[in-house]
Amino acid sequence: MRTLGLRHAITSSLEHHAVLHPLQALAKSGETELSYLRHDAQGRLDLGHLEELLAAHPRSFVSLMHGNNELGNLNSILEIGDICARHDAVFHTDTVQTMGHYHHDVQQLKNHFLVGSAHKFHGPKGVGFLYRRGGLEVGPLIHGGAQERNVRSGTENVYGIVGLAKALEIACRDMTAHQHYIQGLKDRLIGRLRAGIADVQFNGLSVAADQSLYTVLSVSLPPSSISEMLLFSLDINKIAASGGSACTSGAQLGSHVLEALGGDSNRATVRLSMSKLNTEEEIDYAAAQLVKLYQPALV
Amino acid sequence: MRTLGLRHAITSSLEHHAVLHPLQALAKSGETELSYLRHDAQGRLDLGHLEELLAAHPRSFVSLMHGNNELGNLNSILEIGDICARHDAVFHTDTVQTMGHYHHDVQQLKNHFLVGSAHKFHGPKGVGFLYRRGGLEVGPLIHGGAQERNVRSGTENVYGIVGLAKALEIACRDMTAHQHYIQGLKDRLIGRLRAGIADVQFNGLSVAADQSLYTVLSVSLPPSSISEMLLFSLDINKIAASGGSACTSGAQLGSHVLEALGGDSNRATVRLSMSKLNTEEEIDYAAAQLVKLYQPALV
Repeated sequence: MRTLGLRHAITSSLEHHAVLHPLQALAKSGETELSYLRHDAQGRLDLGHLEELLAAHPRSFVSLMHGNNELGNLNSILEIGDICARHDAVFHTDTVQTMGHYHHDVQQLKNHFLVGSAHKFHGPKGVGFLYRRGGLEVGPLIHGGAQERNVRSGTENVYGIVGLAKALEIACRDMTAHQHYIQGLKDRLIGRLRAGIADVQFNGLSVAADQSLYTVLSVSLPPSSISEMLLFSLDINKIAASGGSACTSGAQLGSHVLEALGGDSNRATVRLSMSKLNTEEEIDYAAAQLVKLYQPALV
Repeated sequence: MRTLGLRHAITSSLEHHAVLHPLQALAKSGETELSYLRHDAQGRLDLGHLEELLAAHPRSFVSLMHGNNELGNLNSILEIGDICARHDAVFHTDTVQTMGHYHHDVQQLKNHFLVGSAHKFHGPKGVGFLYRRGGLEVGPLIHGGAQERNVRSGTENVYGIVGLAKALEIACRDMTAHQHYIQGLKDRLIGRLRAGIADVQFNGLSVAADQSLYTVLSVSLPPSSISEMLLFSLDINKIAASGGSACTSGAQLGSHVLEALGGDSNRATVRLSMSKLNTEEEIDYAAAQLVKLYQPALV
Protein backbone atom coordinates (compact mmCIF):
# COMPACT_ATOMS: atom_id res chain seq x y z
CA MET A 1 0.00 0.00 0.00
CA ARG A 2 2.84 2.30 1.00
CA THR A 3 4.89 1.29 -2.06
CA LEU A 4 1.90 1.91 -4.32
CA GLY A 5 1.29 5.30 -2.72
CA LEU A 6 -2.38 4.47 -1.94
CA ARG A 7 -4.28 5.62 1.15
CA HIS A 8 -7.69 4.00 0.68
CA ALA A 9 -8.73 0.41 0.10
CA ILE A 10 -12.03 -1.17 -0.86
CA THR A 11 -12.93 -4.78 -0.24
CA SER A 12 -15.92 -6.89 0.78
CA SER A 13 -16.66 -8.68 4.05
CA LEU A 14 -17.19 -11.79 1.90
CA GLU A 15 -13.49 -11.95 0.93
CA HIS A 16 -11.10 -14.66 2.09
CA HIS A 17 -9.23 -14.18 5.38
CA ALA A 18 -6.02 -14.06 3.33
CA VAL A 19 -7.22 -10.73 1.89
CA LEU A 20 -9.31 -9.41 4.78
CA HIS A 21 -6.79 -9.90 7.57
CA PRO A 22 -3.84 -8.12 5.91
CA LEU A 23 -6.09 -5.20 4.86
CA GLN A 24 -7.55 -4.99 8.36
CA ALA A 25 -4.03 -5.05 9.82
CA LEU A 26 -3.04 -2.15 7.54
CA ALA A 27 -6.19 -0.25 8.51
CA LYS A 28 -5.49 -0.86 12.20
CA SER A 29 -1.94 0.45 11.89
CA GLY A 30 -3.25 3.58 10.15
CA GLU A 31 -1.54 2.81 6.84
CA THR A 32 -4.83 2.78 4.94
CA GLU A 33 -8.51 3.59 5.23
CA LEU A 34 -10.73 0.63 4.48
CA SER A 35 -14.25 0.61 2.98
CA TYR A 36 -16.50 -2.40 2.61
CA LEU A 37 -18.67 -2.93 -0.44
CA ARG A 38 -22.38 -3.58 0.11
CA HIS A 39 -23.86 -6.90 -1.00
CA ASP A 40 -27.29 -8.53 -0.96
CA ALA A 41 -28.46 -11.61 0.96
CA GLN A 42 -27.13 -13.89 -1.79
CA GLY A 43 -23.72 -12.20 -1.69
CA ARG A 44 -24.11 -10.27 -4.97
CA LEU A 45 -21.75 -7.27 -4.81
CA ASP A 46 -23.32 -3.82 -5.23
CA LEU A 47 -21.28 -2.39 -8.12
CA GLY A 48 -23.19 0.90 -7.93
CA HIS A 49 -21.75 1.26 -4.44
CA LEU A 50 -18.29 0.54 -5.87
CA GLU A 51 -18.78 3.44 -8.31
CA GLU A 52 -19.80 5.71 -5.40
CA LEU A 53 -16.83 4.69 -3.26
CA LEU A 54 -14.40 5.18 -6.14
CA ALA A 55 -15.91 8.55 -7.04
CA ALA A 56 -15.25 9.63 -3.45
CA HIS A 57 -11.82 7.95 -3.28
CA PRO A 58 -10.22 7.74 -6.72
CA ARG A 59 -6.94 5.84 -6.93
CA SER A 60 -8.00 3.33 -4.25
CA PHE A 61 -6.69 -0.20 -3.86
CA VAL A 62 -9.59 -2.53 -4.72
CA SER A 63 -9.48 -6.18 -3.73
CA LEU A 64 -12.46 -8.27 -4.82
CA MET A 65 -12.33 -11.99 -5.42
CA HIS A 66 -13.31 -13.92 -8.52
CA GLY A 67 -14.90 -17.04 -7.04
CA ASN A 68 -15.98 -17.01 -3.40
CA ASN A 69 -14.34 -19.91 -1.57
CA GLU A 70 -17.27 -20.54 0.77
CA LEU A 71 -20.33 -19.72 -1.30
CA GLY A 72 -19.03 -20.39 -4.79
CA ASN A 73 -20.38 -17.00 -6.02
CA LEU A 74 -18.61 -15.72 -9.14
CA ASN A 75 -17.97 -11.99 -9.46
CA SER A 76 -17.51 -10.36 -12.85
CA ILE A 77 -13.91 -9.24 -12.54
CA LEU A 78 -14.06 -7.99 -16.13
CA GLU A 79 -16.82 -5.52 -15.20
CA ILE A 80 -15.21 -4.59 -11.86
CA GLY A 81 -11.90 -4.05 -13.65
CA ASP A 82 -13.55 -1.61 -16.07
CA ILE A 83 -15.02 0.37 -13.15
CA CYS A 84 -11.63 0.41 -11.43
CA ALA A 85 -9.90 1.58 -14.60
CA ARG A 86 -12.32 4.52 -14.95
CA HIS A 87 -11.34 5.66 -11.45
CA ASP A 88 -7.62 5.01 -11.72
CA ALA A 89 -7.83 2.33 -9.00
CA VAL A 90 -5.35 -0.49 -8.51
CA PHE A 91 -7.28 -3.74 -8.84
CA HIS A 92 -6.27 -6.93 -7.04
CA THR A 93 -8.27 -10.13 -7.39
CA ASP A 94 -8.05 -13.30 -5.32
CA THR A 95 -8.31 -15.80 -8.17
CA VAL A 96 -7.23 -18.75 -6.03
CA GLN A 97 -10.53 -20.60 -6.59
CA THR A 98 -10.69 -19.98 -10.33
CA MET A 99 -7.07 -20.24 -11.54
CA GLY A 100 -6.77 -23.42 -13.60
CA HIS A 101 -10.58 -23.74 -13.69
CA TYR A 102 -11.52 -20.68 -15.78
CA HIS A 103 -9.65 -18.78 -18.49
CA HIS A 104 -7.95 -15.55 -17.38
CA ASP A 105 -6.89 -13.32 -20.23
CA VAL A 106 -4.64 -10.62 -18.76
CA GLN A 107 -4.86 -8.65 -22.01
CA GLN A 108 -8.61 -8.34 -21.58
CA LEU A 109 -8.83 -8.10 -17.78
CA LYS A 110 -7.91 -4.74 -16.25
CA ASN A 111 -6.40 -6.45 -13.22
CA HIS A 112 -3.11 -5.25 -11.76
CA PHE A 113 -2.78 -8.36 -9.60
CA LEU A 114 -3.99 -11.96 -9.86
CA VAL A 115 -2.96 -14.89 -7.68
CA GLY A 116 -2.88 -18.67 -7.83
CA SER A 117 -2.32 -21.45 -5.32
CA ALA A 118 -1.07 -24.75 -6.73
CA HIS A 119 -3.07 -27.11 -4.51
CA LYS A 120 -6.30 -25.61 -5.87
CA PHE A 121 -5.52 -27.07 -9.31
CA HIS A 122 -4.05 -30.43 -8.22
CA GLY A 123 -0.51 -29.09 -7.79
CA PRO A 124 1.64 -29.30 -4.65
CA LYS A 125 0.64 -27.67 -1.36
CA GLY A 126 2.48 -24.64 -0.06
CA VAL A 127 3.31 -22.85 -3.31
CA GLY A 128 1.50 -20.14 -5.24
CA PHE A 129 2.12 -17.16 -7.47
CA LEU A 130 1.36 -13.48 -7.82
CA TYR A 131 0.75 -11.99 -11.27
CA ARG A 132 1.68 -8.33 -11.33
CA ARG A 133 1.02 -6.03 -14.27
CA GLY A 134 4.21 -4.48 -15.64
CA GLY A 135 5.14 -1.02 -14.41
CA LEU A 136 3.77 -1.41 -10.88
CA GLU A 137 6.34 -1.42 -8.11
CA VAL A 138 5.63 -3.46 -4.99
CA GLY A 139 7.81 -3.68 -1.89
CA PRO A 140 8.84 -6.97 -0.32
CA LEU A 141 6.90 -8.55 2.55
CA ILE A 142 9.87 -10.80 3.30
CA HIS A 143 13.20 -8.92 3.30
CA GLY A 144 16.60 -10.53 2.96
CA GLY A 145 18.49 -11.82 -0.07
CA ALA A 146 17.53 -10.40 -3.43
CA GLN A 147 15.65 -13.44 -4.72
CA GLU A 148 12.68 -13.15 -7.09
CA ARG A 149 13.86 -9.70 -8.16
CA ASN A 150 13.75 -8.38 -4.60
CA VAL A 151 10.02 -8.97 -4.22
CA ARG A 152 10.22 -12.10 -2.05
CA SER A 153 13.46 -13.10 -0.38
CA GLY A 154 14.46 -16.62 0.56
CA THR A 155 15.74 -19.71 -1.21
CA GLU A 156 13.02 -20.72 -3.66
CA ASN A 157 10.84 -23.83 -3.27
CA VAL A 158 12.13 -25.14 -6.61
CA TYR A 159 10.27 -28.46 -6.88
CA GLY A 160 7.09 -26.71 -5.71
CA ILE A 161 7.44 -24.08 -8.41
CA VAL A 162 8.09 -26.71 -11.08
CA GLY A 163 5.09 -28.71 -9.83
CA LEU A 164 2.86 -25.61 -9.87
CA ALA A 165 3.77 -24.78 -13.47
CA LYS A 166 3.15 -28.35 -14.66
CA ALA A 167 -0.13 -28.63 -12.75
CA LEU A 168 -1.38 -25.35 -14.24
CA GLU A 169 -0.41 -26.50 -17.72
CA ILE A 170 -2.37 -29.75 -17.26
CA ALA A 171 -5.36 -27.94 -15.71
CA CYS A 172 -5.57 -25.47 -18.60
CA ARG A 173 -5.10 -28.13 -21.28
CA ASP A 174 -8.26 -30.07 -20.39
CA MET A 175 -10.23 -27.23 -18.82
CA THR A 176 -13.42 -27.38 -20.87
CA ALA A 177 -13.84 -31.13 -20.51
CA HIS A 178 -13.35 -30.85 -16.75
CA GLN A 179 -15.85 -27.99 -16.50
CA HIS A 180 -18.55 -30.11 -18.13
CA TYR A 181 -17.74 -33.20 -16.10
CA ILE A 182 -17.59 -31.44 -12.72
CA GLN A 183 -20.71 -29.32 -13.40
CA GLY A 184 -22.45 -32.64 -14.10
CA LEU A 185 -21.38 -33.93 -10.68
CA LYS A 186 -22.57 -30.76 -8.99
CA ASP A 187 -25.98 -30.88 -10.73
CA ARG A 188 -26.32 -34.53 -9.74
CA LEU A 189 -25.53 -33.68 -6.11
CA ILE A 190 -28.06 -30.82 -6.07
CA GLY A 191 -30.71 -33.13 -7.51
CA ARG A 192 -30.10 -35.89 -4.97
CA LEU A 193 -30.16 -33.49 -2.03
CA ARG A 194 -33.36 -31.79 -3.22
CA ALA A 195 -35.02 -35.17 -3.70
CA GLY A 196 -33.94 -36.48 -0.30
CA ILE A 197 -34.05 -33.55 2.13
CA ALA A 198 -37.16 -31.45 2.57
CA ASP A 199 -36.31 -27.75 2.81
CA VAL A 200 -32.68 -28.14 1.74
CA GLN A 201 -31.39 -24.76 0.54
CA PHE A 202 -28.17 -23.49 -1.03
CA ASN A 203 -26.25 -20.48 0.23
CA GLY A 204 -25.44 -17.49 -1.94
CA LEU A 205 -25.61 -18.20 -5.65
CA SER A 206 -24.18 -21.65 -5.15
CA VAL A 207 -26.97 -23.40 -7.04
CA ALA A 208 -26.83 -21.16 -10.14
CA ALA A 209 -24.65 -22.83 -12.75
CA ASP A 210 -23.59 -19.65 -14.52
CA GLN A 211 -23.07 -17.56 -11.40
CA SER A 212 -21.08 -19.90 -9.20
CA LEU A 213 -18.02 -22.13 -9.16
CA TYR A 214 -18.71 -25.55 -10.66
CA THR A 215 -16.44 -27.00 -7.97
CA VAL A 216 -18.26 -25.79 -4.84
CA LEU A 217 -21.72 -26.35 -3.40
CA SER A 218 -22.72 -24.61 -0.17
CA VAL A 219 -25.60 -26.56 1.33
CA SER A 220 -27.92 -25.03 3.93
CA LEU A 221 -29.62 -27.72 5.98
CA PRO A 222 -32.87 -27.46 7.94
CA PRO A 223 -32.75 -27.03 11.73
CA SER A 224 -32.08 -30.40 13.35
CA SER A 225 -30.56 -31.93 16.46
CA ILE A 226 -27.98 -33.53 14.14
CA SER A 227 -26.47 -30.14 13.21
CA GLU A 228 -23.88 -29.95 15.95
CA MET A 229 -22.47 -33.33 14.99
CA LEU A 230 -22.83 -32.81 11.23
CA LEU A 231 -19.17 -32.51 10.18
CA PHE A 232 -18.17 -35.21 12.64
CA SER A 233 -20.86 -37.55 11.29
CA LEU A 234 -19.71 -36.96 7.72
CA ASP A 235 -16.08 -37.42 8.72
CA ILE A 236 -16.59 -40.84 10.30
CA ASN A 237 -18.39 -41.82 7.11
CA LYS A 238 -15.26 -40.81 5.14
CA ILE A 239 -16.70 -37.61 3.65
CA ALA A 240 -14.30 -34.66 3.82
CA ALA A 241 -16.45 -31.55 4.06
CA SER A 242 -16.22 -28.25 5.88
CA GLY A 243 -18.61 -25.87 7.58
CA GLY A 244 -17.03 -22.72 6.25
CA SER A 245 -13.59 -22.29 4.75
CA ALA A 246 -10.93 -24.96 5.14
CA CYS A 247 -8.78 -22.49 7.06
CA THR A 248 -11.13 -22.58 10.01
CA SER A 249 -11.48 -26.36 10.08
CA GLY A 250 -10.69 -27.67 13.52
CA ALA A 251 -11.05 -24.20 14.95
CA GLN A 252 -14.85 -24.45 15.35
CA LEU A 253 -15.26 -20.80 14.43
CA GLY A 254 -18.37 -19.55 12.71
CA SER A 255 -18.04 -18.50 9.08
CA HIS A 256 -17.53 -14.74 8.67
CA VAL A 257 -19.05 -15.07 5.17
CA LEU A 258 -22.28 -16.76 6.26
CA GLU A 259 -22.53 -14.27 9.10
CA ALA A 260 -22.16 -11.38 6.62
CA LEU A 261 -25.07 -12.83 4.60
CA GLY A 262 -27.19 -12.76 7.75
CA GLY A 263 -28.97 -16.08 7.24
CA ASP A 264 -30.90 -18.21 9.73
CA SER A 265 -28.46 -19.25 12.45
CA ASN A 266 -30.56 -22.34 13.22
CA ARG A 267 -29.63 -23.84 9.86
CA ALA A 268 -26.33 -25.71 9.46
CA THR A 269 -24.07 -25.23 6.46
CA VAL A 270 -21.85 -27.79 4.84
CA ARG A 271 -19.53 -27.00 1.93
CA LEU A 272 -19.02 -29.81 -0.54
CA SER A 273 -16.28 -29.52 -3.16
CA MET A 274 -15.89 -31.56 -6.32
CA SER A 275 -13.00 -32.19 -8.67
CA LYS A 276 -12.22 -34.10 -11.84
CA LEU A 277 -11.04 -36.93 -9.59
CA ASN A 278 -14.49 -37.49 -8.08
CA THR A 279 -16.92 -40.07 -9.47
CA GLU A 280 -20.71 -40.20 -9.73
CA GLU A 281 -20.64 -43.03 -7.20
CA GLU A 282 -18.90 -40.79 -4.69
CA ILE A 283 -21.47 -38.04 -5.28
CA ASP A 284 -24.31 -40.53 -4.75
CA TYR A 285 -22.67 -41.85 -1.59
CA ALA A 286 -22.15 -38.36 -0.12
CA ALA A 287 -25.72 -37.36 -0.94
CA ALA A 288 -27.08 -40.59 0.57
CA GLN A 289 -25.17 -40.03 3.81
CA LEU A 290 -26.50 -36.48 4.15
CA VAL A 291 -30.05 -37.60 3.31
CA LYS A 292 -29.82 -40.35 5.93
CA LEU A 293 -28.69 -37.88 8.61
CA TYR A 294 -31.65 -35.61 7.84
CA GLN A 295 -34.33 -38.29 7.70
CA PRO A 296 -37.18 -37.47 10.08
CA ALA A 297 -36.73 -39.70 13.16
CA LEU A 298 -38.62 -42.97 12.72
CA VAL A 299 -41.52 -43.28 15.14
CA MET B 1 9.44 -6.24 17.70
CA ARG B 2 6.09 -4.58 18.37
CA THR B 3 4.60 -7.84 19.63
CA LEU B 4 7.60 -8.38 21.92
CA GLY B 5 7.34 -4.80 23.23
CA LEU B 6 10.99 -4.04 22.39
CA ARG B 7 12.31 -0.68 21.20
CA HIS B 8 16.02 -1.37 20.66
CA ALA B 9 17.83 -4.00 18.62
CA ILE B 10 21.48 -5.04 18.46
CA THR B 11 23.04 -6.87 15.54
CA SER B 12 26.29 -6.95 13.57
CA SER B 13 27.07 -5.72 10.09
CA LEU B 14 28.44 -9.23 9.43
CA GLU B 15 24.97 -10.79 9.72
CA HIS B 16 23.10 -12.34 6.79
CA HIS B 17 20.85 -10.10 4.66
CA ALA B 18 17.90 -12.13 5.93
CA VAL B 19 18.51 -10.63 9.39
CA LEU B 20 20.00 -7.26 8.45
CA HIS B 21 17.39 -6.17 5.92
CA PRO B 22 14.31 -6.75 8.11
CA LEU B 23 15.98 -5.02 11.09
CA GLN B 24 17.03 -2.12 8.89
CA ALA B 25 13.48 -1.87 7.52
CA LEU B 26 12.12 -1.72 11.11
CA ALA B 27 14.70 0.92 12.01
CA LYS B 28 13.81 2.95 8.93
CA SER B 29 10.10 2.87 9.78
CA GLY B 30 10.91 4.04 13.32
CA GLU B 31 9.68 0.84 14.96
CA THR B 32 13.08 0.18 16.56
CA GLU B 33 16.48 1.73 17.22
CA LEU B 34 19.33 -0.34 15.85
CA SER B 35 22.90 -0.66 17.18
CA TYR B 36 25.76 -2.49 15.50
CA LEU B 37 28.28 -4.51 17.47
CA ARG B 38 31.97 -3.80 16.91
CA HIS B 39 34.20 -6.52 15.47
CA ASP B 40 37.88 -6.86 14.56
CA ALA B 41 39.48 -7.35 11.14
CA GLN B 42 38.92 -11.12 11.37
CA GLY B 43 35.23 -10.62 12.20
CA ARG B 44 35.52 -11.55 15.91
CA LEU B 45 32.59 -9.90 17.73
CA ASP B 46 33.43 -7.52 20.59
CA LEU B 47 31.43 -8.99 23.46
CA GLY B 48 32.57 -6.22 25.79
CA HIS B 49 30.77 -3.85 23.47
CA LEU B 50 27.70 -6.06 23.70
CA GLU B 51 27.81 -5.71 27.51
CA GLU B 52 28.05 -1.92 27.12
CA LEU B 53 25.17 -1.72 24.67
CA LEU B 54 22.97 -3.93 26.83
CA ALA B 55 23.83 -1.94 29.98
CA ALA B 56 22.63 1.17 28.14
CA HIS B 57 19.62 -0.58 26.56
CA PRO B 58 18.43 -3.48 28.72
CA ARG B 59 15.66 -5.62 27.24
CA SER B 60 16.93 -5.22 23.68
CA PHE B 61 16.35 -7.62 20.81
CA VAL B 62 19.75 -9.19 20.01
CA SER B 63 20.31 -11.00 16.73
CA LEU B 64 23.75 -12.55 16.27
CA MET B 65 24.44 -15.54 14.06
CA HIS B 66 26.08 -18.82 14.99
CA GLY B 67 28.16 -19.55 11.87
CA ASN B 68 28.87 -16.75 9.41
CA ASN B 69 27.70 -17.77 5.94
CA GLU B 70 30.45 -15.93 4.08
CA LEU B 71 33.47 -16.18 6.38
CA GLY B 72 32.68 -19.36 8.26
CA ASN B 73 33.39 -17.64 11.62
CA LEU B 74 31.69 -19.34 14.56
CA ASN B 75 30.33 -17.17 17.37
CA SER B 76 29.87 -18.54 20.87
CA ILE B 77 26.10 -18.33 21.15
CA LEU B 78 26.33 -19.98 24.57
CA GLU B 79 28.41 -17.05 25.89
CA ILE B 80 26.33 -14.43 24.05
CA GLY B 81 23.16 -16.03 25.44
CA ASP B 82 24.50 -15.70 28.99
CA ILE B 83 25.24 -12.01 28.44
CA CYS B 84 21.76 -11.47 26.98
CA ALA B 85 20.15 -13.29 29.90
CA ARG B 86 21.92 -11.03 32.42
CA HIS B 87 20.42 -7.99 30.66
CA ASP B 88 16.93 -9.42 30.10
CA ALA B 89 17.44 -9.26 26.31
CA VAL B 90 15.54 -11.37 23.77
CA PHE B 91 18.14 -13.39 21.87
CA HIS B 92 17.64 -14.53 18.28
CA THR B 93 20.30 -16.51 16.44
CA ASP B 94 20.54 -17.26 12.73
CA THR B 95 21.58 -20.91 13.01
CA VAL B 96 20.95 -21.64 9.33
CA GLN B 97 24.59 -22.58 8.69
CA THR B 98 24.98 -24.77 11.79
CA MET B 99 21.63 -26.54 12.18
CA GLY B 100 22.18 -30.22 11.35
CA HIS B 101 25.97 -29.69 11.49
CA TYR B 102 26.46 -28.87 15.20
CA HIS B 103 24.50 -29.88 18.29
CA HIS B 104 22.06 -27.29 19.64
CA ASP B 105 20.82 -27.99 23.14
CA VAL B 106 17.94 -25.60 23.81
CA GLN B 107 18.03 -26.49 27.50
CA GLN B 108 21.60 -25.20 27.73
CA LEU B 109 21.41 -22.31 25.23
CA LYS B 110 19.66 -19.15 26.45
CA ASN B 111 18.26 -18.50 22.99
CA HIS B 112 14.67 -17.36 22.53
CA PHE B 113 14.78 -18.03 18.80
CA LEU B 114 16.74 -20.40 16.54
CA VAL B 115 16.14 -21.08 12.86
CA GLY B 116 16.84 -23.75 10.30
CA SER B 117 16.67 -24.02 6.53
CA ALA B 118 16.25 -27.52 5.09
CA HIS B 119 18.48 -27.14 2.05
CA LYS B 120 21.45 -26.39 4.33
CA PHE B 121 21.32 -29.96 5.65
CA HIS B 122 20.49 -31.78 2.40
CA GLY B 123 16.72 -31.33 2.75
CA PRO B 124 14.38 -29.72 0.20
CA LYS B 125 14.71 -26.08 -0.87
CA GLY B 126 12.14 -23.51 0.16
CA VAL B 127 11.25 -24.75 3.64
CA GLY B 128 12.63 -23.86 7.06
CA PHE B 129 11.62 -23.56 10.70
CA LEU B 130 11.65 -21.14 13.59
CA TYR B 131 12.26 -22.42 17.11
CA ARG B 132 10.60 -20.17 19.68
CA ARG B 133 11.04 -20.54 23.43
CA GLY B 134 7.73 -21.14 25.21
CA GLY B 135 6.00 -18.11 26.69
CA LEU B 136 7.08 -15.62 24.02
CA GLU B 137 4.31 -14.23 21.85
CA VAL B 138 5.12 -13.27 18.26
CA GLY B 139 2.74 -11.70 15.74
CA PRO B 140 2.28 -13.07 12.22
CA LEU B 141 4.23 -11.72 9.25
CA ILE B 142 1.73 -13.34 6.88
CA HIS B 143 -1.89 -12.75 7.90
CA GLY B 144 -4.83 -14.80 6.70
CA GLY B 145 -6.14 -18.19 7.78
CA ALA B 146 -5.23 -19.40 11.23
CA GLN B 147 -2.62 -21.97 10.16
CA GLU B 148 0.42 -22.80 12.30
CA ARG B 149 -1.37 -21.47 15.40
CA ASN B 150 -1.84 -18.04 13.81
CA VAL B 151 1.90 -17.40 13.46
CA ARG B 152 2.16 -18.04 9.71
CA SER B 153 -0.94 -18.21 7.52
CA GLY B 154 -1.23 -20.15 4.30
CA THR B 155 -1.69 -23.76 3.26
CA GLU B 156 1.40 -25.62 4.53
CA ASN B 157 4.14 -26.99 2.27
CA VAL B 158 3.44 -30.49 3.60
CA TYR B 159 5.98 -32.54 1.61
CA GLY B 160 8.63 -29.87 2.28
CA ILE B 161 7.96 -30.04 6.02
CA VAL B 162 8.13 -33.85 6.00
CA GLY B 163 11.36 -33.69 3.97
CA LEU B 164 12.88 -31.14 6.36
CA ALA B 165 12.16 -33.29 9.40
CA LYS B 166 13.61 -36.42 7.80
CA ALA B 167 16.71 -34.59 6.53
CA LEU B 168 17.38 -33.13 9.99
CA GLU B 169 16.99 -36.56 11.56
CA ILE B 170 19.55 -38.03 9.12
CA ALA B 171 21.93 -35.07 9.53
CA CYS B 172 21.91 -35.37 13.32
CA ARG B 173 22.28 -39.17 13.31
CA ASP B 174 25.67 -39.19 11.56
CA MET B 175 26.84 -35.72 12.60
CA THR B 176 30.17 -36.58 14.22
CA ALA B 177 31.32 -38.79 11.35
CA HIS B 178 30.42 -36.05 8.86
CA GLN B 179 32.25 -33.40 10.89
CA HIS B 180 35.48 -35.40 10.78
CA TYR B 181 35.14 -36.24 7.11
CA ILE B 182 34.32 -32.71 5.94
CA GLN B 183 36.97 -31.07 8.16
CA GLY B 184 39.43 -33.44 6.45
CA LEU B 185 38.31 -32.16 3.05
CA LYS B 186 38.66 -28.57 4.19
CA ASP B 187 42.15 -29.14 5.60
CA ARG B 188 43.17 -30.83 2.36
CA LEU B 189 41.87 -27.89 0.34
CA ILE B 190 43.73 -25.37 2.53
CA GLY B 191 46.95 -27.39 2.12
CA ARG B 192 46.68 -27.60 -1.67
CA LEU B 193 45.94 -23.90 -2.03
CA ARG B 194 48.80 -22.89 0.26
CA ALA B 195 51.18 -25.16 -1.66
CA GLY B 196 50.07 -23.89 -5.07
CA ILE B 197 49.32 -20.18 -4.71
CA ALA B 198 51.88 -17.77 -3.31
CA ASP B 199 50.27 -15.28 -0.94
CA VAL B 200 46.92 -17.09 -0.74
CA GLN B 201 45.06 -15.91 2.38
CA PHE B 202 41.83 -16.85 4.12
CA ASN B 203 39.22 -14.33 5.21
CA GLY B 204 38.03 -14.01 8.79
CA LEU B 205 38.68 -17.08 10.93
CA SER B 206 37.97 -19.35 8.01
CA VAL B 207 41.23 -21.27 8.34
CA ALA B 208 40.92 -21.95 12.10
CA ALA B 209 39.40 -25.39 12.59
CA ASP B 210 37.87 -24.71 16.01
CA GLN B 211 36.64 -21.20 15.24
CA SER B 212 34.97 -21.67 11.86
CA LEU B 213 32.45 -23.82 10.04
CA TYR B 214 33.99 -27.03 8.72
CA THR B 215 31.82 -26.63 5.62
CA VAL B 216 33.02 -23.20 4.42
CA LEU B 217 36.38 -21.83 3.28
CA SER B 218 36.67 -18.17 2.31
CA VAL B 219 39.74 -17.82 0.10
CA SER B 220 41.41 -14.46 -0.47
CA LEU B 221 43.42 -14.47 -3.68
CA PRO B 222 46.32 -12.23 -4.62
CA PRO B 223 45.75 -9.31 -6.99
CA SER B 224 45.61 -10.61 -10.56
CA SER B 225 44.17 -9.78 -13.95
CA ILE B 226 42.20 -13.04 -13.66
CA SER B 227 40.13 -11.71 -10.72
CA GLU B 228 37.29 -10.22 -12.74
CA MET B 229 36.73 -13.49 -14.55
CA LEU B 230 37.33 -15.69 -11.51
CA LEU B 231 33.81 -17.00 -10.85
CA PHE B 232 33.16 -17.33 -14.57
CA SER B 233 36.40 -19.30 -15.06
CA LEU B 234 35.50 -21.65 -12.21
CA ASP B 235 31.96 -22.04 -13.52
CA ILE B 236 33.03 -23.14 -17.01
CA ASN B 237 35.31 -25.65 -15.30
CA LYS B 238 32.25 -27.02 -13.45
CA ILE B 239 33.12 -25.60 -10.06
CA ALA B 240 30.16 -23.99 -8.29
CA ALA B 241 31.57 -21.25 -6.08
CA SER B 242 30.50 -17.79 -5.05
CA GLY B 243 32.15 -14.47 -4.38
CA GLY B 244 30.13 -13.61 -1.32
CA SER B 245 26.84 -15.10 -0.22
CA ALA B 246 24.75 -17.23 -2.57
CA CYS B 247 21.94 -14.68 -2.36
CA THR B 248 23.93 -12.15 -4.34
CA SER B 249 25.09 -14.60 -7.01
CA GLY B 250 24.30 -13.25 -10.41
CA ALA B 251 23.77 -9.79 -8.98
CA GLN B 252 27.48 -8.87 -9.13
CA LEU B 253 27.22 -6.92 -5.91
CA GLY B 254 30.15 -6.64 -3.55
CA SER B 255 29.97 -8.53 -0.28
CA HIS B 256 28.72 -6.39 2.63
CA VAL B 257 30.60 -8.73 4.98
CA LEU B 258 34.00 -8.42 3.29
CA GLU B 259 33.43 -4.69 3.05
CA ALA B 260 32.72 -4.56 6.81
CA LEU B 261 36.05 -6.33 7.45
CA GLY B 262 37.79 -3.63 5.43
CA GLY B 263 40.25 -5.83 3.59
CA ASP B 264 42.33 -5.13 0.50
CA SER B 265 39.92 -4.41 -2.36
CA ASN B 266 42.52 -5.54 -4.90
CA ARG B 267 42.24 -9.12 -3.67
CA ALA B 268 39.46 -11.37 -4.97
CA THR B 269 37.45 -13.64 -2.68
CA VAL B 270 35.98 -16.99 -3.54
CA ARG B 271 33.86 -18.99 -1.11
CA LEU B 272 34.18 -22.76 -1.40
CA SER B 273 31.72 -24.98 0.45
CA MET B 274 32.06 -28.67 1.19
CA SER B 275 29.61 -31.35 2.20
CA LYS B 276 29.54 -35.05 3.02
CA LEU B 277 28.76 -35.64 -0.66
CA ASN B 278 32.10 -34.21 -1.86
CA THR B 279 35.12 -36.42 -2.49
CA GLU B 280 38.87 -35.87 -2.09
CA GLU B 281 39.15 -36.04 -5.88
CA GLU B 282 36.75 -33.11 -6.22
CA ILE B 283 38.75 -31.12 -3.65
CA ASP B 284 41.97 -31.83 -5.54
CA TYR B 285 40.34 -30.87 -8.84
CA ALA B 286 38.96 -27.58 -7.47
CA ALA B 287 42.31 -26.71 -5.89
CA ALA B 288 44.16 -27.55 -9.13
CA GLN B 289 41.86 -25.29 -11.17
CA LEU B 290 42.39 -22.37 -8.81
CA VAL B 291 46.14 -22.96 -8.71
CA LYS B 292 46.25 -23.02 -12.51
CA LEU B 293 44.37 -19.72 -12.74
CA TYR B 294 46.85 -18.08 -10.38
CA GLN B 295 50.04 -19.42 -11.98
CA PRO B 296 52.41 -16.59 -12.84
CA ALA B 297 52.23 -16.02 -16.62
CA LEU B 298 54.82 -18.14 -18.46
CA VAL B 299 57.47 -16.04 -20.10
